[in-house]
Amino acid sequence: MDETQMHLDLLQLENYSAGIDPYLRGPYASMYVSKPWTIRQYAGFSNAKDSNAFYRKNLEQGQTGLSVAFDLATHRGYDSDHPRVIGDVGKAGVAIDTVEDMKLLFDQIPLDKISVSMTMNGAVIPILAFFIVAAEEQGISPQQLSGTIQNDILKEFMVRNTYIYPPQASMRIVADIFSYCSQYMPKFNSISVSGYHMHEAGAPAELELAYTLSDGIEYIKCGIDAGLNIDDFAPRISFFWGIGMDFFTEIAKLRAGRILWSRLVSNYKPKNPKSLALRTHCQTSGWSLTVQEPYNNITRTAIEAMAAVCGGTQSLHTNSLDEAIALPSIYSSKIARDTQIYLAQKTGICKTVDPFGGSHFLESLTAQLIEKAWNYIEEINEYGGMTKAIQAGIPKMRIEEAAIKKQAGIDSKQIQIIGVNSYISQSSYNNEILEVDNTKVKNQQIESLKKIKSNRNSDLVNQFLFELQESAKDSQKNILTVAVKAARARASLGEISLALESVFGRYEANNKIVSGVYSHHSMNQKELEKIRLLTDSFAKKHGRRPRILICKLGQDGHDRGARIIASGYADLGFDVDIAPLFISPAEAAMQASDNDVHILGISSLAAGHKTLVPETLAELKKLGRNEIKVIVGGVIPEQDFEFLKNSGVAAIFGPGTPVTQSAEMVLKILEDQ
Amino acid sequence: MDETQMHLDLLQLENYSAGIDPYLRGPYASMYVSKPWTIRQYAGFSNAKDSNAFYRKNLEQGQTGLSVAFDLATHRGYDSDHPRVIGDVGKAGVAIDTVEDMKLLFDQIPLDKISVSMTMNGAVIPILAFFIVAAEEQGISPQQLSGTIQNDILKEFMVRNTYIYPPQASMRIVADIFSYCSQYMPKFNSISVSGYHMHEAGAPAELELAYTLSDGIEYIKCGIDAGLNIDDFAPRISFFWGIGMDFFTEIAKLRAGRILWSRLVSNYKPKNPKSLALRTHCQTSGWSLTVQEPYNNITRTAIEAMAAVCGGTQSLHTNSLDEAIALPSIYSSKIARDTQIYLAQKTGICKTVDPFGGSHFLESLTAQLIEKAWNYIEEINEYGGMTKAIQAGIPKMRIEEAAIKKQAGIDSKQIQIIGVNSYISQSSYNNEILEVDNTKVKNQQIESLKKIKSNRNSDLVNQFLFELQESAKDSQKNILTVAVKAARARASLGEISLALESVFGRYEANNKIVSGVYSHHSMNQKELEKIRLLTDSFAKKHGRRPRILICKLGQDGHDRGARIIASGYADLGFDVDIAPLFISPAEAAMQASDNDVHILGISSLAAGHKTLVPETLAELKKLGRNEIKVIVGGVIPEQDFEFLKNSGVAAIFGPGTPVTQSAEMVLKILEDQ
Repeated sequence: MDETQMHLDLLQLENYSAGIDPYLRGPYASMYVSKPWTIRQYAGFSNAKDSNAFYRKNLEQGQTGLSVAFDLATHRGYDSDHPRVIGDVGKAGVAIDTVEDMKLLFDQIPLDKISVSMTMNGAVIPILAFFIVAAEEQGISPQQLSGTIQNDILKEFMVRNTYIYPPQASMRIVADIFSYCSQYMPKFNSISVSGYHMHEAGAPAELELAYTLSDGIEYIKCGIDAGLNIDDFAPRISFFWGIGMDFFTEIAKLRAGRILWSRLVSNYKPKNPKSLALRTHCQTSGWSLTVQEPYNNITRTAIEAMAAVCGGTQSLHTNSLDEAIALPSIYSSKIARDTQIYLAQKTGICKTVDPFGGSHFLESLTAQLIEKAWNYIEEINEYGGMTKAIQAGIPKMRIEEAAIKKQAGIDSKQIQIIGVNSYISQSSYNNEILEVDNTKVKNQQIESLKKIKSNRNSDLVNQFLFELQESAKDSQKNILTVAVKAARARASLGEISLALESVFGRYEANNKIVSGVYSHHSMNQKELEKIRLLTDSFAKKHGRRPRILICKLGQDGHDRGARIIASGYADLGFDVDIAPLFISPAEAAMQASDNDVHILGISSLAAGHKTLVPETLAELKKLGRNEIKVIVGGVIPEQDFEFLKNSGVAAIFGPGTPVTQSAEMVLKILEDQ
Repeated sequence: MDETQMHLDLLQLENYSAGIDPYLRGPYASMYVSKPWTIRQYAGFSNAKDSNAFYRKNLEQGQTGLSVAFDLATHRGYDSDHPRVIGDVGKAGVAIDTVEDMKLLFDQIPLDKISVSMTMNGAVIPILAFFIVAAEEQGISPQQLSGTIQNDILKEFMVRNTYIYPPQASMRIVADIFSYCSQYMPKFNSISVSGYHMHEAGAPAELELAYTLSDGIEYIKCGIDAGLNIDDFAPRISFFWGIGMDFFTEIAKLRAGRILWSRLVSNYKPKNPKSLALRTHCQTSGWSLTVQEPYNNITRTAIEAMAAVCGGTQSLHTNSLDEAIALPSIYSSKIARDTQIYLAQKTGICKTVDPFGGSHFLESLTAQLIEKAWNYIEEINEYGGMTKAIQAGIPKMRIEEAAIKKQAGIDSKQIQIIGVNSYISQSSYNNEILEVDNTKVKNQQIESLKKIKSNRNSDLVNQFLFELQESAKDSQKNILTVAVKAARARASLGEISLALESVFGRYEANNKIVSGVYSHHSMNQKELEKIRLLTDSFAKKHGRRPRILICKLGQDGHDRGARIIASGYADLGFDVDIAPLFISPAEAAMQASDNDVHILGISSLAAGHKTLVPETLAELKKLGRNEIKVIVGGVIPEQDFEFLKNSGVAAIFGPGTPVTQSAEMVLKILEDQ
């Protein structure tokens, strides 16, 4: 398609109808009038039994679909007994080791009626296999299963980091899943291409659109290359957008996305018009929530949810008010869910199709977004598609630049965040928060894993694991087909993953720091200058610049914050090292000691801090490097501050702390010692 | 204007611009792009000093205008020492007795910069006089004052009941204020014509539009009849809408209102186009808030606020989350205010003019509302205008029918209210609520009133009070001009009101009960039948039907709930008496005894229950009528339940209790004794 044609289309925006290509006004003709969006709250914690109880309660209280959050051990293909995941088991999601866990997870939940979304990208093969077998043993055939598995590995390399294998092997897995689903699971969305994580990493709407849709096209190519007919799998591709605070832009984004997707897919000449229709799940922005004055998060989430449904989403997760503080509690989950019930029943949105259709402002905003996104899509095309652009580091860099620019704006109060840098509030959150006893869950999981392993037919398991390796080597075979057999035989998630890893290898990202963006976009050059003088005088006094190692521990791959801090500190005159992702406490201590840093900065967003941080301090002590100051940032509930300080942490920085302010405090700590 | 012309206009809706007659898309060309709406939170409690501190804190925290809530004693023209107001002083608003209170109220608030809205309709003469004199003694001339006094007396006779004088005398006062303001206060809105109270009383959008705009036209006629040029006062007429849960309808209402007003006023041939422009304040719906799961009220308020600003309001009050429980606390007020700051700064609404302009759905909804409202406006015209229609009881009846119909729908779960009759929640509100020590405030007020009276020149005061009476008798004189002199001399609010009352008299409403609407619209005929059988069997057993007297005590005129209960109970087979408004505890007890009722039902929405209810029980005891059961309904904080029960109350019904359910409980109480 050339640019001229795109412009021609735009002129006719007004005459489009919902349910007809190019689907500007919605993928279905009658939209919510005949079927409201699915209320699908993302949740999961601790073990399968607790999560199951939570799901069932939610379904009783008006939720209409499930969305499973897995713990990071599961995401990264480790069983709960693996030494790399001591802080992660059951923390930011539910721990799943075998099909027995999966069966518990959906106990008494009719999988032929309730659609299930599973956020899984790395360990997608064992998880999907477990899901199929768990349903099978419930008496439900794969044909009856609806929902999605995220299976969007490309964006993991850009922003979310829960990959296991390198890009090419990962794409082979995607293709095998497409092929399996098109044959056996006609109601299941075989992929959910996700812009959400780009959104949360700081990408503006046009980048989120461009990169996500380009990812989608890459998957289309992948399916076609694997010999599938486009109409066999394209209708089962769904999308997942993040919805932030910019109300009208977010609505325009959903509408623009549908037009762009239809145009992009039409190049592949599908015969089924459903191949051209973009269906999407949305989630309100976690990034927009604040620890300060958490009840304002209800307002933020309500407005974001309104944007999602005005834009015509097919399903929606609304964040809980305490999500910037901890995992959602039963109470806060209820408020979040009620927000959706309220929107569906009270606002009249379900009596209309595309309420903004025809609006001069919204139609023009939609057209502008289409054009802006189109330019970025062209850029990706020039690199030869998304896989190559990712290898060249383009999308990651663009997103990171946008995020740092935004942070600089917030730190210098050019961008105001109510309760954080403007109309600052001192009140704190008194409601109960959900805390998972990580060690207890881990021990339970290990116990039950042992039991399962001792009761199964080991020869059969080994035979299937060997068959898995063979299938990984031979692209004519379908990995998922074999994994389903292994799952039936009670092979564990770690075993299935490891079998594939032995053929594909494990991916390691390189770790470049963006520089100059923070200082360039800060509106408070005076403040910058002040910190730079401090780092200069530190260097003069100590013979070298203050040196910091910034790391994420365990399987927590949410590194937006860590990378912003790294980039910002570098701009402020620190000597910054950034550790590889997924290191253990011992590895972090070792690298801190080897690099002879003054400070070790740990960024934690996956609730593992109470286990991992004290371990790191103990490892430093073992190395005789007590003088290295440990600081912690990320999502740390206030009630854990004392525990961490008693463990020896020098300072804790919650979300919303300006980079400059934390840097100044760190320098003070160094000078005071 | 004939109907044909109205239809012609509608066809051209799309080509209208903001800032140009008929102002469909907004009264100003650039709307929020050049000036965001005013964040104007309605507040006031206790005495002037406490309210002043509250206002100043709010202004510091991002509020941009003031809106004063007066206590009911002030509304109804009584000083704090009057025996009729023992439960009302300082409760639902601030107590103002003299200009000294008014000066305290605005202490250190620059009245030439901050616009002040005062919700006052009954005692509008002394309050406006106090405001003018307080500003004068701050060094601010009337020319510099901006804001509004509600001064919309017509709707008081329909729904709100804070009138003092009969309709005709009240309209004379309105005309005098128009005349005074057009001469001396060019920046001050001399009236704020209010649909809000109709909205809250249950009027659907078309009724709210029709009756409010008809009220507006009645004021235009009143000004013209008083000899004013339309362009001297019409540009200073503003409006006040209630914004409920029906998102798109509320937006359409604001847009439809502007078109209708422009068309209606154009009949009077103004030369200044500003006479045709409808400017409005909005308030989110208190009626939509629930005691159950109060944090959901944040969502409700956020969505309603979004509708108000998408509709193009000029100023906005957002309700606090605890407003269904008690007066807003400092904390809940902050959340409510933050909602507006958030909308203004984050959603992008301030970068656009009429974002729904051109939307197929919204434009058609707007056109439909214009037509529906037009039919009701015609109906009022057929009665010869609003004053006459009110005398015939038409608008009050139509609004009440709508309210009862809605309640029947809620009680039979045809209309769902989340947390109340669907997805019922048990959690209660734990945050601090604001409680006013009524007795303390009353004693302070009485003390300071005594002091002021002993220090003033009594002869001068008496001379001005006499002059006031003379001006009331002579329509060539301006009552407000004289009241300003009396205020300067420290005449009290009660004295000024009484002087006018001695000429005009005090208005008393008649009290008819709507019947048959509740039973007709209930979708749960089985439940109705069940209660009717119970009342029938009561009648058989006791020789007469269960008889209830429903009353409001003190100056609390919010009688929507009381009237719905009266109407519903009548339909359920009770023998229902409804007491006149504004009776004292002694009068209520006397009437209950005289009518020989089984139950005395007290409806309290003005926070006076802790004073007034025990007094009523004591009065019943004095009359030897202990056997009459007292029940209480309305806005009663849970923490007061025990206090009331210990005082002898038989049952307390919070908002959200179905009429049928409370009736069944009442019958059970009667049978159990």
